[in-house]
Amino acid sequence: MIRLPKYIHNSQGTLWLTEDERDNLKISYRIKEVLFEESSPFQHVMVLDSFDFGPMLVLDGVVQTTSKDGHIYNEMITHVPLSVHPRPQDVLIIGGGDCGAAKEAAKYESVRRIDLVEIDEAVVRASKRYMPEVSGNLSDPRVHYYYDDGVDFAKRASAAYDVIIVDSSDPVGPAQMLFEPAFYESLHRALREDGLMVCQSQSPIFHGDIMEQTYRRIGHIFPHTRLYTAVVPTYPGGLWSFTLGSKRELPEPERIRFNKTASYANQELVRRCFSLPAFLKERLELSADAARAH
Amino acid sequence: MIRLPKYIHNSQGTLWLTEDERDNLKISYRIKEVLFEESSPFQHVMVLDSFDFGPMLVLDGVVQTTSKDGHIYNEMITHVPLSVHPRPQDVLIIGGGDCGAAKEAAKYESVRRIDLVEIDEAVVRASKRYMPEVSGNLSDPRVHYYYDDGVDFAKRASAAYDVIIVDSSDPVGPAQMLFEPAFYESLHRALREDGLMVCQSQSPIFHGDIMEQTYRRIGHIFPHTRLYTAVVPTYPGGLWSFTLGSKRELPEPERIRFNKTASYANQELVRRCFSLPAFLKERLELSADAARAH
Repeated sequence: MIRLPKYIHNSQGTLWLTEDERDNLKISYRIKEVLFEESSPFQHVMVLDSFDFGPMLVLDGVVQTTSKDGHIYNEMITHVPLSVHPRPQDVLIIGGGDCGAAKEAAKYESVRRIDLVEIDEAVVRASKRYMPEVSGNLSDPRVHYYYDDGVDFAKRASAAYDVIIVDSSDPVGPAQMLFEPAFYESLHRALREDGLMVCQSQSPIFHGDIMEQTYRRIGHIFPHTRLYTAVVPTYPGGLWSFTLGSKRELPEPERIRFNKTASYANQELVRRCFSLPAFLKERLELSADAARAH
Repeated sequence: MIRLPKYIHNSQGTLWLTEDERDNLKISYRIKEVLFEESSPFQHVMVLDSFDFGPMLVLDGVVQTTSKDGHIYNEMITHVPLSVHPRPQDVLIIGGGDCGAAKEAAKYESVRRIDLVEIDEAVVRASKRYMPEVSGNLSDPRVHYYYDDGVDFAKRASAAYDVIIVDSSDPVGPAQMLFEPAFYESLHRALREDGLMVCQSQSPIFHGDIMEQTYRRIGHIFPHTRLYTAVVPTYPGGLWSFTLGSKRELPEPERIRFNKTASYANQELVRRCFSLPAFLKERLELSADAARAH
């Protein structure tokens, strides 16, 4: 009998991955083949070739990105801050081991250095080898890989970056520190005086509390904060939020220019991702009012 | 032993609904309680109280709408056409048995009549009784219920409506006829000379072919066609498309006004839902080019 990797089960001759992170909702993906499996010092890493989404990166049994839709997340976490900054030169990516954010950042001619700090080398290796649609099999000489703890790395930097992208997994386990105020303070120090940061701030529908807390924490440290959304089909709820924290005033959405070739992002979307649904706008306004009254 | 309703299974004392419509992706919802179950002449109808989404309407084992997010779909299928029309008075809703579209249409003072044509009376009864968050437990005297076949009903109408909303289920089984050119021709005749229709046109990501076909078919019959999107968390892929077909020119998005109270829709979103992701814009443009060359 062949041993099945952790998290995979065989049902009547068919392989399935069932995400087990949620108590009340289970999503099962039919799998063609296990392309990569390794227990790294940090987590259990797999690339599974799925029927519906092509190769998928799976960490500790949870789908992180897929070949079919991973570009949406990576384009939106990268192109919004890089379009907002007038002339980004030095970019720091924390997390982002699938290399997709680095691939998008490399589209900017003004960018001269991209530091990618991923704690788990196995994630980068697996993504480059088995998910070229996401990683772009990146060999741009401007990209520098550091297999290091993002929190420590950020602490050591000072006024060194124009844009910092925090492309973390969910705030459980190793990524939890990436949602803490102390970390945002390090990012503030690591940015130049006109710098800005962005982070993924979870689902407005299923993790509204984390989203609101992230928005508030970044708002305590950065004078200018703005939230935007994108649709990421394989994330629960589809709608996903991102939060910008900037040292200098953010431009009005209508003034943002974007002219890169991308699959999801275009200038209209990069401007309009800041238009929030009624319930979300109201929630952030109430949160801001409460913070002021405090 | 208690008999479990069709589509529900018990796993270690916990009830689950597993959607079985897709071959390669299975979604399982943990269920608190079966609130309603009936085999109607048309389908198997249930309302299940779920842990994550509250009461959900389930037809033939597939989730149609939930108390948590059903309003998003209903607001977007209703407020976009009703905001685009300068003065909607007579509205026809085909399908829409959850009553959510009727609830939203009733927010317009100019509307004097809402004809709701749902083939399955059991769906309306179940939604009114067990899903008031979606149906609004509608008792507005302007709403007239017809338990009838939408295709036949539309055939009999002539220049009678300002706006027609086709709120159908997926194009398999009873709803298939609601995606056929003959049906769109009936709608064209049923509309006044400045009238417009809207239909849900499926997921741009998972049902791109149906979306494109719907857009093309409506474009053959109506001189003005436009596609928009919204995020519906419990639909596969999150991103959902809607197609407008209009007898007269559609206003530029920036000129649309919307001032109703809603949970997802606001004026910004009603305008910006027409901003499409790059891949989608390109697909529709290629399709239009092919149609012209034909």
